[in-house]
Amino acid sequence: MKTTTALGIDIGGTNICCALVSDEGELSFEQNFSTKNFIEPSHLVAQVYETYVALIQQNNFELAGIGMGAPNGNFFSGSIEHAPNMPWKGIVPLAKLFAEKFNCLSLLTNDANAAAIGEMQFGAAKGMKDFLMITLGTGLGSGVVSNGQLIYGHDGFAGELGHTIYDYNGRPCGCGRKGCLETYCSATGIVRTVQEWLSDETVITYLRNEENLTAKNIYEAAKAGDALALKAFDFTAEILGRKLADAVAVTSPQAIVLFGGLANAGALLFEPTKKYMEANMLFVYKNKVQLLPSLLKENEAAIIGAASLIYHQLKK
Amino acid sequence: MKTTTALGIDIGGTNICCALVSDEGELSFEQNFSTKNFIEPSHLVAQVYETYVALIQQNNFELAGIGMGAPNGNFFSGSIEHAPNMPWKGIVPLAKLFAEKFNCLSLLTNDANAAAIGEMQFGAAKGMKDFLMITLGTGLGSGVVSNGQLIYGHDGFAGELGHTIYDYNGRPCGCGRKGCLETYCSATGIVRTVQEWLSDETVITYLRNEENLTAKNIYEAAKAGDALALKAFDFTAEILGRKLADAVAVTSPQAIVLFGGLANAGALLFEPTKKYMEANMLFVYKNKVQLLPSLLKENEAAIIGAASLIYHQLKK
Repeated sequence: MKTTTALGIDIGGTNICCALVSDEGELSFEQNFSTKNFIEPSHLVAQVYETYVALIQQNNFELAGIGMGAPNGNFFSGSIEHAPNMPWKGIVPLAKLFAEKFNCLSLLTNDANAAAIGEMQFGAAKGMKDFLMITLGTGLGSGVVSNGQLIYGHDGFAGELGHTIYDYNGRPCGCGRKGCLETYCSATGIVRTVQEWLSDETVITYLRNEENLTAKNIYEAAKAGDALALKAFDFTAEILGRKLADAVAVTSPQAIVLFGGLANAGALLFEPTKKYMEANMLFVYKNKVQLLPSLLKENEAAIIGAASLIYHQLKK
Repeated sequence: MKTTTALGIDIGGTNICCALVSDEGELSFEQNFSTKNFIEPSHLVAQVYETYVALIQQNNFELAGIGMGAPNGNFFSGSIEHAPNMPWKGIVPLAKLFAEKFNCLSLLTNDANAAAIGEMQFGAAKGMKDFLMITLGTGLGSGVVSNGQLIYGHDGFAGELGHTIYDYNGRPCGCGRKGCLETYCSATGIVRTVQEWLSDETVITYLRNEENLTAKNIYEAAKAGDALALKAFDFTAEILGRKLADAVAVTSPQAIVLFGGLANAGALLFEPTKKYMEANMLFVYKNKVQLLPSLLKENEAAIIGAASLIYHQLKK
C-alpha cells in the first residue's frame, strides 16, 4: 500500500525550501534552493519536478497534492500577486503551473495563512475552530480562523492585522501609510524602538555598543537585565496587547498563537503581552482567550503549513 | 398546501415587536408589547403563544421556526446573557423556552447579527459571502459575515467593532474603558461631539438653541448648512472611515452595510466616510469595498433579521 504524502513548498525572496510532509506532520527529503536561480517561475516547477517525481515513485508514496506558502500569495487565484521582494514580477500563477506539471491538487496562500493552517493541523491550535495566528518576523503577519475555516475574504487577501493602524501620526510603514502595527510589533519594529531611544545620548544601555542591532541582541540584553531592552519588550507588548484586544472583539477567538523571531523571546514577550491584552479587553472576552506559543519547529513550520493546505482541503 | 412562515421577534429593553415573516421577507400580523409587562420571560412566551398559535393554524401557515434578536443575545446558548437594559437579569434561556412551548426550531442572536443575516437574506448584502454589517444607533453594533457564515467566535460573542479602541485617552464608554469607537460613531456619539464643542461659548451654531440635542437635530442643522453640524458629520466620518479601513484588513469584505439612526443621514455620512475609509485603506484593498446603505425598512429590519435566522439555518 502506498503512503500518502504532500509536498510543502515555502517560497521566500531569498530561499525556497521544499519537503515531503506526512499526514502526521513529519518531514522527509528536504531540499533548499536559492530563489535567484530561477529566472522564470517555470524553472522552479521543472526543478521541483526533477527532484521529487522519481523520489515519490521509488519510495512508494502517493502524492496528495502540493501546498505552497508565499509572500502576497492569493488562495483563490493560486497566484503570487505583485510581491515586492520576489524576482518574479506581476501576477505569477504558480499553483496552476504546478498543477499542470504534476497533475495534482496544488494550493497556494500567503505565509501567515499557511502557518495558521499548519498550527491547526499539527500545532498549538489542533482541534480549535476559532483562533488567530500571529507571525512576528520582519513584519507582522496574521491568519484568521473562524468556524474551522481560514478567512480569505472576498478577494483572498484577508488577515492583514499587521497593517491595522496603531498611531495615525506614527512610524512610516513600507505600505506607504503611518503607524501600522507591524512598525512596532515585529523583529524590525523592536529594533526601531530601541534605535529611536538610543538617539537620546544620555540613555545607558549595553545595546549602544552593538554594531548591528537585531531583535536577538535586544532579547539577550533584556535577559541580562539591560533596562532599556526590558523597556523595549514592555513597550512592544503594550502595543501588541492593545491591538490583540481589538482583534478579539472582531472574531472572538479561543486562542491567539504567536510564532516567529520575536515570539521566541518567550516569557519576556508573552507575560507583558497577556497582561496588556487583558487590561484592554472588553469585559465579555476577559480571561477567556489563551495566548499560546507555536508548537511547530521554526525551521519546519513554513513547509508544514504549506503542506497542511492539502490535508486541510482533503478533510472538507 | 401550507405556506411557510417564520416568527421574528425583536426584543428590546422598552418594546418587544413580533411578526410572521414570509420566505420572501414580507411581514404580517405584527404585534407590539411593552417589555415591562413581562416580569418573567415565561410570561412573554405564553403571550406570544396565545397571540400566534391559533392565527398560524387559521391562516394555513406552517411555522418553520422562531428567530429572535436581543441585546447580549448569544447564538450558541440561545440565551440573553447579563443584558444591562433588560428587566430579566442574569442568563435567560429564551430560545429554549420558546422551543419547548412551540416545539419548533428557535434561534436567538444579538441585534446586529440578526440585522446582518436579514441583510444577507433580503437586503443590501443579498448573495454576498463576505461583508460587514454596522448598525449606528444608540451604540455601534456589528455583524461579520465571512464565507457566507456569520462569525460567532468560540463563545458566541464575536462582532463588537463598536468596542475596538479609537483613542486610548478618549471618551469614557459604558463598558468601563475609554475611547471605544461607539463613543464617537453612533447617534449618541455625534451628540457628545457637538456637546463638547458647544462648551466653547464662542462657537456659533443653530444647535446652541436646541433644548434636547439629538442626532436628528444635528442632521437637520447640517442639511440647513450649519457649519458646526457639518463639521460634526465630517469628524464622525473620519473616525468611522479610519476604523472601517482597519476592519477591512481583518476579513476583507466585499461590502460594508450601514444601518440605523445615523446611517439615515445618507450622503452627509456616506460620502465623507467613504473618502476617509479609502484614504486610510491598505493598498491591496483600495477601491474594492462597497459602502452601502441598508435596504431593509428601519421599522421592519429587526423583525426580518430575527426571522432570517430561521431561513438562513434551513438553507444549510
